[in-house]
Amino acid sequence: MRTFFSALSLAALAAPSLAASDKPLTPGDVVDAAPASDWKRIAPEDLVVMDLTPGTQGRARRVVIQLIPAPFSQGWTSNIRKLVAARWFDGTAVVRVQDNYVVQWGDPDGETPDKAKPLPAGLAKVPESAYVAARSALKASGGGDAYALRTGFETGWPVAADKKAAWPVHCYGMVGVGRNLSPDTGTGAELYTVIGQAPRQLDRNIALVGRIIAGMEHLSSLPRGTGPLGFYETPQERTPIVSVRMGSDVPGLPAYEYLSTDSASFAAYADKRANRKDDFYIQPAGGVDICNVPVPIRAARP
Amino acid sequence: MRTFFSALSLAALAAPSLAASDKPLTPGDVVDAAPASDWKRIAPEDLVVMDLTPGTQGRARRVVIQLIPAPFSQGWTSNIRKLVAARWFDGTAVVRVQDNYVVQWGDPDGETPDKAKPLPAGLAKVPESAYVAARSALKASGGGDAYALRTGFETGWPVAADKKAAWPVHCYGMVGVGRNLSPDTGTGAELYTVIGQAPRQLDRNIALVGRIIAGMEHLSSLPRGTGPLGFYETPQERTPIVSVRMGSDVPGLPAYEYLSTDSASFAAYADKRANRKDDFYIQPAGGVDICNVPVPIRAARP
Repeated sequence: MRTFFSALSLAALAAPSLAASDKPLTPGDVVDAAPASDWKRIAPEDLVVMDLTPGTQGRARRVVIQLIPAPFSQGWTSNIRKLVAARWFDGTAVVRVQDNYVVQWGDPDGETPDKAKPLPAGLAKVPESAYVAARSALKASGGGDAYALRTGFETGWPVAADKKAAWPVHCYGMVGVGRNLSPDTGTGAELYTVIGQAPRQLDRNIALVGRIIAGMEHLSSLPRGTGPLGFYETPQERTPIVSVRMGSDVPGLPAYEYLSTDSASFAAYADKRANRKDDFYIQPAGGVDICNVPVPIRAARP
Repeated sequence: MRTFFSALSLAALAAPSLAASDKPLTPGDVVDAAPASDWKRIAPEDLVVMDLTPGTQGRARRVVIQLIPAPFSQGWTSNIRKLVAARWFDGTAVVRVQDNYVVQWGDPDGETPDKAKPLPAGLAKVPESAYVAARSALKASGGGDAYALRTGFETGWPVAADKKAAWPVHCYGMVGVGRNLSPDTGTGAELYTVIGQAPRQLDRNIALVGRIIAGMEHLSSLPRGTGPLGFYETPQERTPIVSVRMGSDVPGLPAYEYLSTDSASFAAYADKRANRKDDFYIQPAGGVDICNVPVPIRAARP
């Protein structure tokens, strides 16, 4: 079957010895060759496991979200932990799918005061100032772009920065907090994920609280809503959320790990993403957008 | 219902008089206010209409592709016109859906010599050099980015350029030509469209031949394939293509038009995309990626 990059992927699948060949390496080759010490375990306490109703032919639809670590968005992630502990998300639904933009889930009646599902006590009202953190040292700078003075990776996450502040960026699969108009900042009870071109204009305007590390396809392939903004027009179109639990409460959940963004392996991987010279490529780009360097994440080897 | 940008979209839907309010304009406001003279008709002879088998509940699934104009990729678009005239695509299928990357369609047996559907006579073998064109004057430069010295728009299309050459770029919904390893350049009989973050590393490595201007959701929401590269593992998973016709041969097709990228309206729209100040936004980005400035296209008013 004709495909526009079969060769490189077959090479990646074969995980060749890096020294054995003069063939240009693919990004996948570099990831496959990374030593075990370059992989960092993601604590199950930082995972949120969302089970949708089964799909066609009864197939399970599990989505695994990794919550973002400090210094970013901890007020909201704390709220999300409370909502999960209260089993608040159980019985909510995916309510909106807007093509090339976002999938959104939460209480379908959240904006109708007399029908909204009551929120658990103790949720923080997080200030707008918390959309950004004090500027961190960006370890693996990819330079600036149209949206920021600098971009890079911080403990496994894509971030951007100006001289004073740093913030996570809206790449594909990142998870953010739905909110009403400012000064509302959202609680974390309504969440969305990016399913198209990175909507970087949302950076610093919405709290990013995590990313989807498994099961993204169960959200990105949902039918697009036909109402304004991609909201579903009838309740029947929504996808019910059966349960949402912290990863530490889910028996049998695989152990996930990410490729340390401080590692030499990651630097080599990012370089290969920017300079494809493997069989398929004729003209290496010589650069790469931060959202085209997805941080490698895998279910850990047993 | 909570949504993270309801206000701006409601404003866009209302198409307010631009002079009537001090409220910051949205990109949608600018597009809605564009004079009729800023909209350019897309000739139906440049449209390719692809009808998939009906979806759930018998809903029609029509995808409309606009072929890219000169100076780009005319060898391949000429081939595609021949393939459509020969009704070659009828009975082919969507064979691959890789999340955050591409949907691909064509002959499922195209790589099996004794089973492949014979191609019509007279298809051109287009040289690799045709991936780029001589540098055009970029009318609306958005500056450079990680992938190119300059980016901008040329007769309604997103392009990039270096000092010598210009080329269309791999934004969401752009359509390109599947191919084998170089020196193969593909015929146009196998096509793909982008369904995720712009894979700009493919620029200048594959021929881009068009973009999807209607029905994108029928491709982007297809189930992801579970084989390598997102290929479907069984024929049953494929989505059959019933017919592919040129727009001029499809009775009742709406007349489509695009907002001239040379117009003041487009410049204002792009500026608003880069500097959101409407209700929802607290922190305008101050810049925008070329793939975050989708060229407005609409079914023309009667």
